[in-house]
Amino acid sequence: MTATATPQGVSQALADHLATQRPEAISDRDRHEARRALVNIVGCALGGAEHEAVEIAIAARGPFGGAPTARALGRREGFDPLLASLLNGISSHVHDFDDTTPSNYIHPTSPVASALFSYASANPVSGADFLHAFILGYEAVTRIGNATYPAHYQAGWHSTGSIGVFGAAAAIGRLMGLNPEQMRHALGLAATQAAGIRDNFGAMAKSLHPGRSAEAGYMAALLAAKGFTAGPTPLEGPRGFAHVTTGTSGTFDLSLVTRDLGRDPLLHENTYKPFPCGIVVHPTIDACLQLVAAHDLTPAMIEAVELDVAPLVLDLCNQKDITVGLQGKFSIYHAAGIALARHRAGREEFSDETVNAADVKAMRARVTPRASDTVPEDGVHVTLRLKDGRVLTKELDASIGNIRRPLSDDQLAQKFRDQAEVLTPARTEALIGALWSLDSAADMATIIDLATPE
Amino acid sequence: MTATATPQGVSQALADHLATQRPEAISDRDRHEARRALVNIVGCALGGAEHEAVEIAIAARGPFGGAPTARALGRREGFDPLLASLLNGISSHVHDFDDTTPSNYIHPTSPVASALFSYASANPVSGADFLHAFILGYEAVTRIGNATYPAHYQAGWHSTGSIGVFGAAAAIGRLMGLNPEQMRHALGLAATQAAGIRDNFGAMAKSLHPGRSAEAGYMAALLAAKGFTAGPTPLEGPRGFAHVTTGTSGTFDLSLVTRDLGRDPLLHENTYKPFPCGIVVHPTIDACLQLVAAHDLTPAMIEAVELDVAPLVLDLCNQKDITVGLQGKFSIYHAAGIALARHRAGREEFSDETVNAADVKAMRARVTPRASDTVPEDGVHVTLRLKDGRVLTKELDASIGNIRRPLSDDQLAQKFRDQAEVLTPARTEALIGALWSLDSAADMATIIDLATPE
Repeated sequence: MTATATPQGVSQALADHLATQRPEAISDRDRHEARRALVNIVGCALGGAEHEAVEIAIAARGPFGGAPTARALGRREGFDPLLASLLNGISSHVHDFDDTTPSNYIHPTSPVASALFSYASANPVSGADFLHAFILGYEAVTRIGNATYPAHYQAGWHSTGSIGVFGAAAAIGRLMGLNPEQMRHALGLAATQAAGIRDNFGAMAKSLHPGRSAEAGYMAALLAAKGFTAGPTPLEGPRGFAHVTTGTSGTFDLSLVTRDLGRDPLLHENTYKPFPCGIVVHPTIDACLQLVAAHDLTPAMIEAVELDVAPLVLDLCNQKDITVGLQGKFSIYHAAGIALARHRAGREEFSDETVNAADVKAMRARVTPRASDTVPEDGVHVTLRLKDGRVLTKELDASIGNIRRPLSDDQLAQKFRDQAEVLTPARTEALIGALWSLDSAADMATIIDLATPE
Repeated sequence: MTATATPQGVSQALADHLATQRPEAISDRDRHEARRALVNIVGCALGGAEHEAVEIAIAARGPFGGAPTARALGRREGFDPLLASLLNGISSHVHDFDDTTPSNYIHPTSPVASALFSYASANPVSGADFLHAFILGYEAVTRIGNATYPAHYQAGWHSTGSIGVFGAAAAIGRLMGLNPEQMRHALGLAATQAAGIRDNFGAMAKSLHPGRSAEAGYMAALLAAKGFTAGPTPLEGPRGFAHVTTGTSGTFDLSLVTRDLGRDPLLHENTYKPFPCGIVVHPTIDACLQLVAAHDLTPAMIEAVELDVAPLVLDLCNQKDITVGLQGKFSIYHAAGIALARHRAGREEFSDETVNAADVKAMRARVTPRASDTVPEDGVHVTLRLKDGRVLTKELDASIGNIRRPLSDDQLAQKFRDQAEVLTPARTEALIGALWSLDSAADMATIIDLATPE
């Protein structure tokens, strides 16, 4: 990480790319990875569409909504497009089941796709244009994320919100046909709405982050299209995003925003979660489930659970005394607890009920995590001490879903089915099929209609 | 400044105060200062109500607006309350003519009052409740501002936006009757929407900051009232607002949030601008105008202008090659230029036309500012070199409008009149009178009606 590398004109260079890249520049492989991201995010949005956080947001913001020209994924009602963006962001992130780029720990698709699906439900957009706009928005998020990681994240920003906003602005700006100068203003208007702090991990506000960034990015594009002006150097300026948000270390490398720009949208850096919780506890779940299967373990057999994990894992997920399902998603104790007490880790295992269940609480109490500089962030060393005196160990340095053990297309489709309970099975299959071939859709509205419960 | 002083429970203590303080606790003197702030901000909003930035925001966001149950100050149309909050924030700040607390350089009233006037235009609110809610919102902004100044501002945040959001949440939350726990969630939802970077000084986006903070704070209160949850420690947590946003120095003193809480709302720290531009160039304007008057100077007499100013002045206002009126508000060159070339510094002197006028450009070219550690931030040492060989100097350590030379009530009323061109003179006088006695209004709607053009 170079300290404050600030190539001149990086904001304009990124804006030029976002406004002018030809869709033919995207490889088939990247197109397919983008489709995987969209299959994944629509499933997540369906799975979260009736979450309490979404219902509250509708109750609070709904009375102020405009003409219901747009749809939110998985909901029957119409909403104005800004509100639909907000709701898509909440629903697709609230279970912490959406994708992750491990290079910066951003969940990049939620803020971008949340705005895009809303826009495309209210305006005619071809599948090909939609996919390209998504790729550009994803790329803006990932590039800015890589350029400011780890300082931005370590400062305490939830970068899914604070960086996601750039992707929403880029994607909507592209579909609105912003020229390069307007696109730079849109990036500036995104930068100046960038927000979201990590104090909210474990609360509903975490899901508000991609929601508000989708809405704010959409708004940035709307304003820029009409001539609203922002400063000249939103990323690189001395009072721009990188300097302002990288905390006490203040280090970043904005050359990563433009390196290989136009040649690599970085979609190969994306991963998809098998478990609906903070990604850094996935190795613990995976390893514990493997131990259970290999040794036919029952909860009563287990006396103590020792976990050696990377320091980042405890920085993010050291919540021990928890009472709320959303907190369970950021608890290394709960991760081991459900794997060993319930032998699974689906959405039900992160409900308020499960978090407060006696058997799960008892198993959590047996867990002792330790920070270790020798364990990778994607790994874990599990030591199980059994009541019969046996000691079982499992070392894992790449959990299922990891970039080296990616979910297959079939696994992504199954994950989609598992979350699509608001749709009929037939509609679910039709929607999965439509998403795998969305490039050929003349109008994304036909696909979005399928994501609307009958 | 203590490094990272983080008293436990400061967010909840502030929330308790905001939710439960009795209005009787406010002194008559503070009530009057609050009225002065409101007279000032309504005048500013009227003066900015037809600014291009407002028109663009309406064009961009209007089509997504909800039922027009609210009003924006100085506009004939109805808007939904969130949009009206946004517009009030833009109009009341876009001329950079609103108030300033010199202890933290925040313009505290715009984000708070912008949300409040919108809320009160759509809901019955007595003048007394309105005034108290304003005072609480002002206090939240000023206390959090003082606790995190200068690190937060020096990091590059435009604290009028990034801290103003707390005040809007507090004020609207109070009128909505949030209990202390809900109020803490509202503060958390405000913290996680806190945004606005200084790269935008000189662009329309600067005025978006109080607009978006008014809207976001209003939204925070709406969400909290319905049960949306935020993290437990939005101000003091290790990933809370203070730690996350204080940049490379990372220093703050959150004990200032609760010191004398309930005994002093800090309204005596507020000041009102005589000139519509960055406050740190006010001493330059004032001193130059005094030299012009004392020596009967004409532009042609002036050969060179030397300005010794505090380093902060150049940090904020060192824009030399400017072409846009909004940039002129942050140019020490332009400040001296208009005072010496035009002998005044009203809104017209910060138009695109004046910024590009030959006589003003010529005078700007004669200006040389120098940073000096011995000149106070409220001061200037002006040295004028005349073509006849004379050298005139003026040292000022408190400019007009400064906390030691405050604008009188009559001067505030005159400033209001100067900006109220969207209203008839009779309506203007009626509105000024109503604002000076707003505590006695049974419903603020009667006052807000007066702020609507006939």
